[in-house]
Amino acid sequence: MSELLEKAKKLKTASKALAILTTEEKNEALAKMADRLLTEKELILTENAKDIQAGKENGFSPSLLDRLLLTEERIEQIVEGIRQLIELQDPIGETIEAWERPNGLQIHTVRVPLGVIGMVYEARPNVTVDAGSLCLKAGNAVLLRGSTSALHSNKALVKVMRDALAESKIPADAVQLLEDTSRETASQMFKLNQYLDVLIPRGGAGLIQSVIQNATVPVLETGVGNCHIFIDENAQKQMAVDITINAKLHRPSVCNAAETLLLHENWPYIPEILHSLKEKGVELRADEELAAQYPFVKKAVEEDWQNEFLAPILAVKLVKSVKGAIQHIDEYGTKHSEAIISENGENVRLFFQAVDAAVVYHNASTRFTDGEQFGYGAEIGISTQKLHARGPMGLRAITTTKAIVQGTGQIRS
Amino acid sequence: MSELLEKAKKLKTASKALAILTTEEKNEALAKMADRLLTEKELILTENAKDIQAGKENGFSPSLLDRLLLTEERIEQIVEGIRQLIELQDPIGETIEAWERPNGLQIHTVRVPLGVIGMVYEARPNVTVDAGSLCLKAGNAVLLRGSTSALHSNKALVKVMRDALAESKIPADAVQLLEDTSRETASQMFKLNQYLDVLIPRGGAGLIQSVIQNATVPVLETGVGNCHIFIDENAQKQMAVDITINAKLHRPSVCNAAETLLLHENWPYIPEILHSLKEKGVELRADEELAAQYPFVKKAVEEDWQNEFLAPILAVKLVKSVKGAIQHIDEYGTKHSEAIISENGENVRLFFQAVDAAVVYHNASTRFTDGEQFGYGAEIGISTQKLHARGPMGLRAITTTKAIVQGTGQIRS
Repeated sequence: MSELLEKAKKLKTASKALAILTTEEKNEALAKMADRLLTEKELILTENAKDIQAGKENGFSPSLLDRLLLTEERIEQIVEGIRQLIELQDPIGETIEAWERPNGLQIHTVRVPLGVIGMVYEARPNVTVDAGSLCLKAGNAVLLRGSTSALHSNKALVKVMRDALAESKIPADAVQLLEDTSRETASQMFKLNQYLDVLIPRGGAGLIQSVIQNATVPVLETGVGNCHIFIDENAQKQMAVDITINAKLHRPSVCNAAETLLLHENWPYIPEILHSLKEKGVELRADEELAAQYPFVKKAVEEDWQNEFLAPILAVKLVKSVKGAIQHIDEYGTKHSEAIISENGENVRLFFQAVDAAVVYHNASTRFTDGEQFGYGAEIGISTQKLHARGPMGLRAITTTKAIVQGTGQIRS
Repeated sequence: MSELLEKAKKLKTASKALAILTTEEKNEALAKMADRLLTEKELILTENAKDIQAGKENGFSPSLLDRLLLTEERIEQIVEGIRQLIELQDPIGETIEAWERPNGLQIHTVRVPLGVIGMVYEARPNVTVDAGSLCLKAGNAVLLRGSTSALHSNKALVKVMRDALAESKIPADAVQLLEDTSRETASQMFKLNQYLDVLIPRGGAGLIQSVIQNATVPVLETGVGNCHIFIDENAQKQMAVDITINAKLHRPSVCNAAETLLLHENWPYIPEILHSLKEKGVELRADEELAAQYPFVKKAVEEDWQNEFLAPILAVKLVKSVKGAIQHIDEYGTKHSEAIISENGENVRLFFQAVDAAVVYHNASTRFTDGEQFGYGAEIGISTQKLHARGPMGLRAITTTKAIVQGTGQIRS
């Protein structure tokens, strides 16, 4: 039997035992994992060094090497993440709704684990533990499929996690690393409906598309954020400037960063905001009118409206009204996070109603689209699809429901 | 441009206008549809007669012809369905959760339409109106892809629906029939992520699998129900007999009918229930022990445990305990509906906890897994997947959420 099938079967079996553990039993297991990651730090760092060495030999970019790198401090951060996870409320067993039917049937829906989750990700070894521990807390077994370039690190991390689980009520088999990182095996994994309940890809647009294109297992799509800020005619000057700079520059490489600024043509502070952005080192790419007016503003091309820059670059466009802004977002948005800065209640209502996105903001930065910022305490990703979960996904997003019907002999007539 | 692309684009545009209509505006449009289906009855019956004629020429089975057939009475039933739908609460605009963050951000999540739904179904013209009107009530535009054999009927029905919408606030373009019913075009439709938010296949296992295997658009899987009834050691005799007969015979052709009876070997009324089932005309296929004991019981083969009979045939197996029943269901169940008949609370708790299914029953027939029986008032299908919606799907299952965040200038630090 292939490694994939063998591990998938073990996961399925382990998921049954895991699903019925108490919160305390799961938390104890997570605490053992946290402790052991610290005591086994040396092993993890040694194995990570092999990946880093190979990455250097293969000419990885500094940013890629940085993502791959584990340090003592980063391991401590990962462990701190597990400790915070332990404190979070367990969603499993929650009653969602309860009602009685006229025939006396008592129905209640309760929250239960999804079963087995397939995580597909890139060269970030921290995801191995972060996502793995989240899945376990919500009662799910997890198949981890990381990248070849992080294989030494992932093997070490999963060994440590499984050794810790072996001393707990969670079966060690509830966490499995797919060591065969070939494309063919990935394709098989994406079609393993018999054993996997959901796939969660985490990474760049290429990875996510490859999962969506090839999967028959349902996918929780986490994705691209081409986020817009619309500054309305009467927006407050300082607030608009602060929010735009924050949304663009606080962390340009992430999906909730702003990529396009839509300016109401009558807003009085257009020169000020453009100069402020320029001073902060933002490259501006604007429509013809603005590009002609400001020597430091480049002319935007079609791709600038379409793509995430993930860098200190901002597309800028003049619009005639909130409707013009909505129309532009309709055409180019990726349904992630969209903001309006305005003092006009009517325009805000229209924006909230008409803009199709996971999260819409009024007078706040798009950077708040995040599980922790939403108060979920932990995040498995940000969903840009409409089924199951939309926006930041916390523990509840990796659960499902079961309807329990209690009768006294009812039959259907 | 192909018919598919042209209609998909129109649906996308129409969905935006539809999404922001009030409940009253949607209900008025539905009422106009209901009225017009009655006044245009003749047209519909004439067109349906063409499909029936062609079906006969093509040697369709009587049951297939019956599914295809529209009569005056059936049109009136369809219209009655729309009138009931008008009475149902509109899920759109519901506030799901509302909370405040320590930084003062006000977050609330509201229910919004999915957008554009692709319905894929077989030769049942009633689905055209039933599913189409459900989608509209929840603010969704809908692309209907029925079968070639019902094309005349579907064209007439969709013409009548669109003519009615043209006199209402819902754009007529919110309902489109895909007249090109080729396999190639269906494949294109299943991958039209740019325009379709979800696919809902309704029909046999073959249709559903073909959608799942070929789709990149997220699918709401409605599916196969290999449902079990477990009669525990101390189950009440009459209740167990009544429930089993109801679950098997009330409507054998549907997914929530029972297909396998698991009998605790010490239940004292085994001969009685087998004789009762036989008298009701049920063909029994059992394990070796029972088959040897009762001349009217055939020996079951492996497929009998695996498949839906969808007919008055029941597989029967002796088990030693509730755990034996759970194990059998684990192996052969399709996660649809599973019942335990028992007076032992501990066994019921174990069954509820360990059986992985959309709906689990105690002392009631599996036939209650149904949107109307659950009190949802209408049903778009019964989900056997774990993402998004599980079990009977009412109006809420064809909605998604939007998070609305109101700030006073908050930026992320």
